Amino acid sequence: MSLDGTYDEANIFAKILRGEMPAAKVFEDDDVLAFMDVFPQSRGHTLVIPKRSTARNLLEEHPERLAALMKGVQRVARAVRAALTPDGITITQFNGAAAGQTVFHLHVHIIPRWETAPLGRHGEGGMADPVELKALAGQIAAKIA
Amino acid sequence: MSLDGTYDEANIFAKILRGEMPAAKVFEDDDVLAFMDVFPQSRGHTLVIPKRSTARNLLEEHPERLAALMKGVQRVARAVRAALTPDGITITQFNGAAAGQTVFHLHVHIIPRWETAPLGRHGEGGMADPVELKALAGQIAAKIA
Repeated sequence: MSLDGTYDEANIFAKILRGEMPAAKVFEDDDVLAFMDVFPQSRGHTLVIPKRSTARNLLEEHPERLAALMKGVQRVARAVRAALTPDGITITQFNGAAAGQTVFHLHVHIIPRWETAPLGRHGEGGMADPVELKALAGQIAAKIA
Repeated sequence: MSLDGTYDEANIFAKILRGEMPAAKVFEDDDVLAFMDVFPQSRGHTLVIPKRSTARNLLEEHPERLAALMKGVQRVARAVRAALTPDGITITQFNGAAAGQTVFHLHVHIIPRWETAPLGRHGEGGMADPVELKALAGQIAAKIA
């Protein structure tokens, strides 16, 4: 599996952006959408994606749109910190299946970390409870500055 | 260990920026410096850091400087791809010791991935051969566009 390929409009994040799939939304502006990962690696695991983009990964994105995406990531990461007071935050972004990418619309993971809780593997804990995700999304959204 | 703290001018990346420590440099412009990680998790593991910054992590950085940093990350990641043709590229950025951060000057990891090679743990393989790192830095630098 290489980094080559074409954007698939049927990917799950494209469906969320078109309103065809539900998501526990945290934040939205002209450039980005943030929502809870349904297979969280830790409590509060949030995703940020560009809205008007058909970039599958960071390599393909327009530099200005990447810049806007990362400003959104920072804003949401600060809100995650304020809402959940983790000991640390891991930011990851995967390019290509060989790097762990499973959805081929550019996205950035914001993963809160606690010293007392080892990081789970993606999907290891199964799908999160949608009610709990919505509550977490509300807590984080309340801290967006 | 929390996300609080103050910038330590004696951190190793500050020393590299001041020219007090050597580094296998890949790329440099007004905003960023890219160089090879001396404890690579894979062949071609490259770091990108902001040059004029005392942000310990992504949360603290000025949004415009973060935007410039990520444009540099993209440019270097594209060059890593062109030079080494990995199957994928993992981008990581750690905030706080609990998230795996060991040097407290904001930095982004660009980690090439191959399907045939599992990802090493940071430092697991020991310190890389400086001659090999310099050669890799040259290969990647030649592909900066």
